[in-house]
Amino acid sequence: MLQKQGIYQQRRERVYDWMAREGISLLMIEDAENRRDSNLRWLSAMPSDALLFLSVERKSLLVPWDVNLAKLYADADHIRAYNEFDRKPIKACYKAAALLKIPSASRIEIPSITPYPQFLRYIEALSEFDIICRENGAAEALEQLRAVKDNEEIGIFRKTSKITNGIIDLLEKQLRAGKIKTEYDAVMLIESECRKKGCEGLGFEPLAAGPERSMAIHSFPSYTVLPFGTQGLSILDFGVKYRGYTSDVTLTVAVKPSRAQLRLLSLIEKAYKLALGMVGPGIAARDLAAVVDDFFAKSGKTMPHALGHGIGLDAHEGPYIRKREDNAWLLEPGMVISLEPGLYEPRLGGCRLENDILVTEGGAEVLTTSRIIRL
Amino acid sequence: MLQKQGIYQQRRERVYDWMAREGISLLMIEDAENRRDSNLRWLSAMPSDALLFLSVERKSLLVPWDVNLAKLYADADHIRAYNEFDRKPIKACYKAAALLKIPSASRIEIPSITPYPQFLRYIEALSEFDIICRENGAAEALEQLRAVKDNEEIGIFRKTSKITNGIIDLLEKQLRAGKIKTEYDAVMLIESECRKKGCEGLGFEPLAAGPERSMAIHSFPSYTVLPFGTQGLSILDFGVKYRGYTSDVTLTVAVKPSRAQLRLLSLIEKAYKLALGMVGPGIAARDLAAVVDDFFAKSGKTMPHALGHGIGLDAHEGPYIRKREDNAWLLEPGMVISLEPGLYEPRLGGCRLENDILVTEGGAEVLTTSRIIRL
Repeated sequence: MLQKQGIYQQRRERVYDWMAREGISLLMIEDAENRRDSNLRWLSAMPSDALLFLSVERKSLLVPWDVNLAKLYADADHIRAYNEFDRKPIKACYKAAALLKIPSASRIEIPSITPYPQFLRYIEALSEFDIICRENGAAEALEQLRAVKDNEEIGIFRKTSKITNGIIDLLEKQLRAGKIKTEYDAVMLIESECRKKGCEGLGFEPLAAGPERSMAIHSFPSYTVLPFGTQGLSILDFGVKYRGYTSDVTLTVAVKPSRAQLRLLSLIEKAYKLALGMVGPGIAARDLAAVVDDFFAKSGKTMPHALGHGIGLDAHEGPYIRKREDNAWLLEPGMVISLEPGLYEPRLGGCRLENDILVTEGGAEVLTTSRIIRL
Repeated sequence: MLQKQGIYQQRRERVYDWMAREGISLLMIEDAENRRDSNLRWLSAMPSDALLFLSVERKSLLVPWDVNLAKLYADADHIRAYNEFDRKPIKACYKAAALLKIPSASRIEIPSITPYPQFLRYIEALSEFDIICRENGAAEALEQLRAVKDNEEIGIFRKTSKITNGIIDLLEKQLRAGKIKTEYDAVMLIESECRKKGCEGLGFEPLAAGPERSMAIHSFPSYTVLPFGTQGLSILDFGVKYRGYTSDVTLTVAVKPSRAQLRLLSLIEKAYKLALGMVGPGIAARDLAAVVDDFFAKSGKTMPHALGHGIGLDAHEGPYIRKREDNAWLLEPGMVISLEPGLYEPRLGGCRLENDILVTEGGAEVLTTSRIIRL
């Protein structure tokens, strides 16, 4: 527990340093329904539904919705129930500034996703302060900090990956034994195994799409009782969440594929290897994505989504592996990313292959063992 | 299908009327990861991940992330792939204004939750237009429209409730038979039954908390392999989603409760009856919540959350049944609400009872059959 507290305090210290450099006296972080922000958990161990205030004087105040839960989990200097502030974020911010003795005229940074109309209410209610709301501020700094995992996090990822790989092997075994007949069967196996292994749950709603539905990038509904692993291409995209950190892998199951389907599978495997071969420190994420997009373009195909993304407390976080010209991410040792080339065609179905990869000094370490399973 | 199309068109017509009154030429709705907006589905039948543009000239343009999925589900006059606009909302908005022939200097309303920094980029990129971002605009108008369900929606709710009630009965039966031993067992029964009955899935992550964990409002992790339905108080909060509409119910299971626990149960049942007895057209949601808060206060207790909320495409939507002074919601026939009085104490555990209720001309029709189960 002491060790654990140490980590959250260490992370906050890095943010205090950043605040001092930026001249920010108070930083507000909010995690709420429809406005999830894993920075809360990363900095305070509180899993969800709270505000966190950090002062440049190196004090932290957590304002949880559920005080009982906070007492069990949270790591912060002070805890005050959200109810004390009528569960209103602006009121809580105003009171936090007083409690943490923030001098008037100081700079207070509020969440970068604060809606414009609410921003206007902040500046009115906290008119004695200088309210900062920006994209290139704390949100970006925290995204950069979180993108490179510390040893604690890499240790958790090894465990998350091990559980994931056990599930992949079991899925293949059960598929070969004919025990998985529907999308639902596949998801229930994942759900059951992840709970048995002590996971908090799934990292996101799993997507299981049999041959009738695999042409969607993200099948809707996410899974049904329709056939899975029958003739054609089936896709299974899932992640398990262990101590907050989620894996993100995608299997494709191919049964008696047609020539055109075989070509799709081959393109995906080649794209995956091409991308993986490039992963290493200093590589621009944008270049990685561009190489794969170009590779598909040569075959007259278009991938309708990004090549990959970082994973961590969120299923999608920095670095983003996509070709947009404003993508400035460079790969660094300690980043954990997913690579997920995919192609989808209304008549053929879809194929996607996704694994989680730790960027190392020497290049890449593939953490998960997802694959195209040919039955 | 014709019937279904009719409904989405009808709903859009009501929004076009509102736009004409407000002088809004183009309305933008966005549903994306971390920025979910069920208005998209309500107006276009597209379940998720798209932009929808409505022009006051009564034309709709859907910009989906997944065109294949849109072709299966969506109801809109025009469909253009998000990829055509580099999956950038501001670029898509700019192009949509051109495609829908919006005259310059017109008013374009963007989502009320647009972050302040992004708002600045909208006004820069669309400088020839008057960009509107406000809380009391389209978001509020749509929330009001959606709060009163139409006959189609009430029909769906009857089916959603029937499936939910079947699951509640089965849960009680299995609990009495000793077949549910853990939180996980309870959730798996719900998951399995809802898929069998043709639901899209669960309405939200179910919360199952055995006696050790029920003192949290929302247990974390949401469920585990710890005991459920053993001595003390266990809470089970779940909803199933049928054709987009979710139920939201909470059971408490009490086994050999202590005197103090019995008192908690009795207070919750009394509060629930008190609230239910008041439900009817014209009642202020705020008054309803205040009566229950006052009732608990007389017993020296505090409920740490709101009394209830509307349900629909979202698990939480208008009307909100809470005491905040700015709560102006009045109950109307056709509203579907949940009432969920709850109390939580570190040593005793928690108790919550939640059912879904249709507000009728005559008062209330309780749609679900959740209850306190005494084993």
